Amino acid sequence: MISVEEALARILTEITPLNVRQVPLPEASGLVLSQDIVAQEDIPPFANSAMDGFALLSRDSQPQHGQPPRLRITGEVAAGYVADHAVEKGTTMRIMTGAPVPPGADSIIQVELTRTEGPDSPWVEILATVPVGNNIRPAGEDMRSGQTVLRQGDEIGPWEIGILATLGWPTIPVIRSPHVAILGTGDEVIDVAEPLRPGKIRNSNSYLLEAAVQRAGAIPHRLGVAHDTVESLREKFTEAVQYDLIITSGGVSVGDFDLVKNIMAEQGQINFWRINMRPGKPVAFGHISGIPLLGLPGNPVSAAVTFELFGRPVIRKMLGHTRLIRQQVDVIVEDGVSDRAMRRHYVRAYVEWRDGRFVAHTTGNQGSHIMTSLLNVNALVIVPEGGVQVHAGDTAKAIMLDWPEV
Amino acid sequence: MISVEEALARILTEITPLNVRQVPLPEASGLVLSQDIVAQEDIPPFANSAMDGFALLSRDSQPQHGQPPRLRITGEVAAGYVADHAVEKGTTMRIMTGAPVPPGADSIIQVELTRTEGPDSPWVEILATVPVGNNIRPAGEDMRSGQTVLRQGDEIGPWEIGILATLGWPTIPVIRSPHVAILGTGDEVIDVAEPLRPGKIRNSNSYLLEAAVQRAGAIPHRLGVAHDTVESLREKFTEAVQYDLIITSGGVSVGDFDLVKNIMAEQGQINFWRINMRPGKPVAFGHISGIPLLGLPGNPVSAAVTFELFGRPVIRKMLGHTRLIRQQVDVIVEDGVSDRAMRRHYVRAYVEWRDGRFVAHTTGNQGSHIMTSLLNVNALVIVPEGGVQVHAGDTAKAIMLDWPEV
Repeated sequence: MISVEEALARILTEITPLNVRQVPLPEASGLVLSQDIVAQEDIPPFANSAMDGFALLSRDSQPQHGQPPRLRITGEVAAGYVADHAVEKGTTMRIMTGAPVPPGADSIIQVELTRTEGPDSPWVEILATVPVGNNIRPAGEDMRSGQTVLRQGDEIGPWEIGILATLGWPTIPVIRSPHVAILGTGDEVIDVAEPLRPGKIRNSNSYLLEAAVQRAGAIPHRLGVAHDTVESLREKFTEAVQYDLIITSGGVSVGDFDLVKNIMAEQGQINFWRINMRPGKPVAFGHISGIPLLGLPGNPVSAAVTFELFGRPVIRKMLGHTRLIRQQVDVIVEDGVSDRAMRRHYVRAYVEWRDGRFVAHTTGNQGSHIMTSLLNVNALVIVPEGGVQVHAGDTAKAIMLDWPEV
Repeated sequence: MISVEEALARILTEITPLNVRQVPLPEASGLVLSQDIVAQEDIPPFANSAMDGFALLSRDSQPQHGQPPRLRITGEVAAGYVADHAVEKGTTMRIMTGAPVPPGADSIIQVELTRTEGPDSPWVEILATVPVGNNIRPAGEDMRSGQTVLRQGDEIGPWEIGILATLGWPTIPVIRSPHVAILGTGDEVIDVAEPLRPGKIRNSNSYLLEAAVQRAGAIPHRLGVAHDTVESLREKFTEAVQYDLIITSGGVSVGDFDLVKNIMAEQGQINFWRINMRPGKPVAFGHISGIPLLGLPGNPVSAAVTFELFGRPVIRKMLGHTRLIRQQVDVIVEDGVSDRAMRRHYVRAYVEWRDGRFVAHTTGNQGSHIMTSLLNVNALVIVPEGGVQVHAGDTAKAIMLDWPEV
């Protein structure tokens, strides 16, 4: 048996980020930048007003003989337009938030600190003294032309999208998303819409993995279920090698009838591992026709957990992410873990932040065939290998499944 | 001015979940169940083997005169098939993981605890005593026919998808996703592909909000930018009212030139609020032609933050979620917050878990026009209203932006 860490390290060594593609800005959300983004302009591109108010010379805001100064209003500047004349001593212009500061003016006084006789008034009283630069946002205060604003490897979220738009990037150089073939195996597996017949169970793994692959940022292609025949398996693998990654479920354990292993071994270089973990001991990894293949166990719980531990990091590495592993935190396991295991046990649990600490509740029967143990789960509590017992109130490490990778 | 909490409460009162739709199982990921899901069958549907091994009568595993018993192999059961005869005293059948337990057998012994003379051997030696029920997963151990497995209001993630597949649900009753119109305003705003001209800035809000709306689970429709004319605004609003929700940016502050407010007020019932927060004081909410409208400020930072605080909960409520608000935790603000504000300040920060506590670093200049303050952010540190100072090392509340809602 090998450890989870060793298996993951061996897998990730074989995975490289995919190639670069230019995508329209709105499609870049969730992807990873393939190059640094350098500002080609100052942002903001021009000095502009932070307030609705009046543009003036700072020294014109000084009281005259104890009286508020009166300035002549010579025009106005709306956002999006530029003044057609300068502000001179004794004069002022109305100005709106975001509008360029007119030439001559060195200060903005907000409208609340002024008094006029209506919107058409030609005069304004200045009720406060304002320093040079008041309410002016200088050009380049946010970003300077030539500055590296975003870096290769950064994930593009909504806020990065906003910055890329500001900098004038209608298409974005990104690492493209992997296309992932999802293949179920086993004569016992029927499709979701079929009525149950003796000995049969419905295909849940393919749908579960499809959603998990999509959530990881890849594009799933559900290929259905291969029958336990050489022909059926060969046909499915021929289809699967069109994609960037193949994920199978079932067929990788020690059973005599596991044709899958034979076909995998025949068509490529596949390692079959017994991993020191529960659920999910048997996992396969290798290449078929040059395409990486990850073979997960057939039990849905095992498939779900091994996908989180191995499949998701593979997809993230292909996407160009450098943060591949989920955060672990210390949690108080309020109910303890009743069953002991010699293998390391990933116990499904719900963790919440309460009174300044993380508290975990496990989800009952942790058998690898108990799908309901996957409900209301946001964490995997790790019970170390070697038959360690976790009693109620003990502290353990937990993998937070709905926090981002670190 | 009203508080953030009061504004959000007033908004959410006016929002109801959208109607129910049947969607194919793979499209249900991320949506909310509109009804309870009751199992119509036992899961597993039949008693099956947890191991590859031999099905036998438990009492046949007792040693005979100190020797391991030998049992005659009468056949085999693969996963997906049913035995065509029963296991009787003195006999056994090979059985694979997941295969139905053949009639007569009350126990499974795993293959590692047996010895045969090759795969065609007609006899097997039983090397251990196994109790009744050994390695048998009873029918219904996971879910019972009639049991409510998932509940109305549950979010459907990959693991729930797996359970729905197992239970035979090819289409799922969900609350449908809202279609959200996204409308920019302002004569200063040009599109992302256009070269900058004097007084102009590029449209970043529409792209930022499009990505944020999508991440919140809704379907964005970017309508472009309305000019500051009555005709342009009316035309855009006529288009926008085809959708479930309208989100605008800009045009809701106190400025004289804010035609947007007038058109909104003319076409519907809109409240214009000054909210006790920074960034993002002016926010509008109401209805136009019966469609809810959320008017966000024009500064990209303000639009980004007010979307998180108001827009995302609105979309989540429309989607049928009951968890609408992000988790807050106590963080140590390692660098403090240099600028004081009388309004409550939502300071952009990066929070990490280090040595058993959350530590926050703020992202520099927190001006509402400083888009780079949105980079490498995963939290909003809350500085309470009233000019409270947060010194380096002080504790504050932080909203975790990439944790799920609670």
